[in-house]
Amino acid sequence: MRLVSQIGISRRALVAGLATLPALSTTLSSASAQAQAVTPGDQLPSWNQGPAKQAIIDFVHTTVDRSSSNYVAPEERIAVFDQDGTLWVEHPIYAQVMYCLDRVPAVAAREPELRDVEPFKTVLSGDREAIAKLSMPDLEKILVATLTGITTDEFNTEVKKWLEAARDPRWNRPYTDLIYQPMLEVLRYLRDSGYKTYIVTGGGQDFVRVYSEKVYGIPPEQVVGTAGATKLDYDKDGNPFLTKEPKLLLNDDKAGKPEGIHLMIGRRPYAAFGNSVGDCEMLEWTGAGQGARLKMLVLHDDAKREYAYGPAEGLPDTKVGTFTPALLDEAKSKGWTVISMKEDWKQVFAFESDGRPR
Amino acid sequence: MRLVSQIGISRRALVAGLATLPALSTTLSSASAQAQAVTPGDQLPSWNQGPAKQAIIDFVHTTVDRSSSNYVAPEERIAVFDQDGTLWVEHPIYAQVMYCLDRVPAVAAREPELRDVEPFKTVLSGDREAIAKLSMPDLEKILVATLTGITTDEFNTEVKKWLEAARDPRWNRPYTDLIYQPMLEVLRYLRDSGYKTYIVTGGGQDFVRVYSEKVYGIPPEQVVGTAGATKLDYDKDGNPFLTKEPKLLLNDDKAGKPEGIHLMIGRRPYAAFGNSVGDCEMLEWTGAGQGARLKMLVLHDDAKREYAYGPAEGLPDTKVGTFTPALLDEAKSKGWTVISMKEDWKQVFAFESDGRPR
Repeated sequence: MRLVSQIGISRRALVAGLATLPALSTTLSSASAQAQAVTPGDQLPSWNQGPAKQAIIDFVHTTVDRSSSNYVAPEERIAVFDQDGTLWVEHPIYAQVMYCLDRVPAVAAREPELRDVEPFKTVLSGDREAIAKLSMPDLEKILVATLTGITTDEFNTEVKKWLEAARDPRWNRPYTDLIYQPMLEVLRYLRDSGYKTYIVTGGGQDFVRVYSEKVYGIPPEQVVGTAGATKLDYDKDGNPFLTKEPKLLLNDDKAGKPEGIHLMIGRRPYAAFGNSVGDCEMLEWTGAGQGARLKMLVLHDDAKREYAYGPAEGLPDTKVGTFTPALLDEAKSKGWTVISMKEDWKQVFAFESDGRPR
Repeated sequence: MRLVSQIGISRRALVAGLATLPALSTTLSSASAQAQAVTPGDQLPSWNQGPAKQAIIDFVHTTVDRSSSNYVAPEERIAVFDQDGTLWVEHPIYAQVMYCLDRVPAVAAREPELRDVEPFKTVLSGDREAIAKLSMPDLEKILVATLTGITTDEFNTEVKKWLEAARDPRWNRPYTDLIYQPMLEVLRYLRDSGYKTYIVTGGGQDFVRVYSEKVYGIPPEQVVGTAGATKLDYDKDGNPFLTKEPKLLLNDDKAGKPEGIHLMIGRRPYAAFGNSVGDCEMLEWTGAGQGARLKMLVLHDDAKREYAYGPAEGLPDTKVGTFTPALLDEAKSKGWTVISMKEDWKQVFAFESDGRPR
């Protein structure tokens, strides 16, 4: 095994995921569908009237209005979105960590000597309690083994297959169903207003790119994430292929987010959406630009329809998508807008009103 | 000084640039403007009729025609272009290497102790013959010193200033005037046909992004190049800034080109344009995809209007943009199209016919 740093998902994600694994097996009641009172012409129908919705609308109006001092030229219109906890559910554990754990049997089939080697032995045992106790270096070994040493084509195929088969335990739905309807509306509204929408995620760039276009309407080239190197090689017929290497190029979390934005986009965003301490630097970077800049943070304060965690505002503490009191203080002092899932979102998921059976 | 690998320009570029510095001082006659016989509706008016022009037109027709078996969905339409020698002049030396040499006095003013240290002492002496003899590690020191340890904002400002002031010695024009009119037409034609056009260059990503939008109509987020890490920091007022670090993330040359395409775009291109051995892997990678794929190489065989170098087809050998006989053999065997600058291009530069004084 190559004992290198984690590849394809940020270090924070790993630590967090590990600590919360035991919560995985619980299945709770689904959220109840809520009535939709759609205002004609309202591009954000899943949002309740309030400061969050108004901040989005005001930002769009002032930046696309040619007569406004805040007018932004179309080519400069860049909006960035964290993914986990901002566009889709991140609790109790990141979907990509589930993918990696689920991939261990396939890796062990390819390399049978791993069956008797930790941490693979523990993962193969299926003992959730033991899995949850794995050390950070152990989980890194699992990520390296499951996310690298595979061609980019094989990886795409495997992730696609997994996404079709895997189910979130609470809603018993594909993970890609657990995207926030209000955020889909924001993505669409910004795109309709000439904004290029990007995902800037601590998750694996290659992982998210597999489904981003279908799920969010965001093409792979507009997904910035934690990324490893690849290596070009040729098969016996001389055909080139790329293999995912265990070498980290971009840890797209915290300071890595503005760094990743510079590397992959090369422009400062005008709008940034996040939900945790990992997004703080991205919002600071966005806010340091001139003119109107939209900085928003989703606060998970809705245990009934989704999850409640902070520890800001006295919500339960968590290592997955931590929203600290210090982050809330910074948001207040810098005029960032906090989105209360409970107060601001009429509906959380598209499936709440689509009538499809679970 | 930080003695690390080169940052912001590929290793091949450095070696090549160094070897050809002596040629810099010669100023030759300008190319003569040629008459334009524009066919109505012709989107490639600077191209002579021939297999190269036809290959481009056929490719576009077959990939945008919904009834064609080669039809490509709009979101999949990606075209990649090498820059140096493909979109603009690379002889006698890459523009970015000139920038780095020209920046040495400013760096020495900031760090006066460098005045007496090699290779800075030699560069400051202005002795071209001595500069041309600098070793590879010496030139790397110059690139690290001039391309890193500076904020991204300062770097952009400095490159902009330099581009306005610097002149190519042969045509006595800004480097950004030395772009090929036929290739601008290809870029526009492909974009008009729904293709997203990217630059994939061994040159510095941050360097090319400064002018790509204005010069080529290619936005910064569609420039893939040799790239170094940046580091987020804060000034005394708490404002974030990014500093360019002497740590190489992507050496975007040869195998680094498909690797860079995977990292920054995440899709296989349908069209790829290059001119040298550094582009070979990019064309192979493009050609390994299914359906119609356009692979083209510019051959510099026009010493009168631009430069002539190979050594393919018995043209003079060069270390800047080498087009080897082996590359020509591969092009022939794989059905790549070679663009003869002399035969295929009616006009090389826009300024040949714009009537502006030099």
